[in-house]
Amino acid sequence: MSAVRIARLSEEPLDLDAHLRAVEDDASGAVTTFVGRVRNTDPDAADAVIALEYSAHPDAPAVLERIAAAAAEGTDAIVAVSHRVGRLDVGEAAVVIAVASGHRAEAFEVCRRVIETIKTDLPVWKRQVEADGTTQWKGLGG
Amino acid sequence: MSAVRIARLSEEPLDLDAHLRAVEDDASGAVTTFVGRVRNTDPDAADAVIALEYSAHPDAPAVLERIAAAAAEGTDAIVAVSHRVGRLDVGEAAVVIAVASGHRAEAFEVCRRVIETIKTDLPVWKRQVEADGTTQWKGLGG
Repeated sequence: MSAVRIARLSEEPLDLDAHLRAVEDDASGAVTTFVGRVRNTDPDAADAVIALEYSAHPDAPAVLERIAAAAAEGTDAIVAVSHRVGRLDVGEAAVVIAVASGHRAEAFEVCRRVIETIKTDLPVWKRQVEADGTTQWKGLGG
Repeated sequence: MSAVRIARLSEEPLDLDAHLRAVEDDASGAVTTFVGRVRNTDPDAADAVIALEYSAHPDAPAVLERIAAAAAEGTDAIVAVSHRVGRLDVGEAAVVIAVASGHRAEAFEVCRRVIETIKTDLPVWKRQVEADGTTQWKGLGG
């Protein structure tokens, strides 16, 4: 029987340990996590990303809950997932997922399904802030 | 350019945070982790697992290093992995893996390759201690 323990949009920094604690269960032999972060490939380039600003549609929390439930449906996986909103600097986590399950294949597959569906379906947009002051809106799937 | 930051057999409890810190890198947009733990499916059954005792061949650390390097080869992934030896109670981690990479597909795939190859190739054996006092040796692939 699957379960969703956390499915939340958050203005505060995301806490991986809190997500791990939320999926804690003695029957779980496998725990996977995914953290998606603001990355900086070339700090010296004019178009280097120095921050991302995330904003979410009011429906986003309900959509995130449905994404997590659908990813775990038909499995024994326990899921905790949060997506950050607001301004994030390089290195900060935009999304954190923890999945516990009896066996590793399921733990990996459910974790992957959650992030892939977030990328396609969660109504969250990001504005990229570059080193030269330029900003660019990015849609879903970024 | 891939890198292996930790590849270790450990008699001490495994520390996921230490593995996450070991793969820390501003250029990494995706971080995946896997923890394999001693699970207990039915605490009241006579054959319920109450502990596992892991022992390793002396070559195991070198094999683990090669497993991690091979899993990351040809990618930008940074890998940290440890396998526990000795007696583990239910809930304790037997293996901990952290992988950081530029993008999520690579982070998931390298993490999965590391654990799958550990299961087939790492010369570690486990003895299962059951609630009624029975012990059973389990080979690779368990």
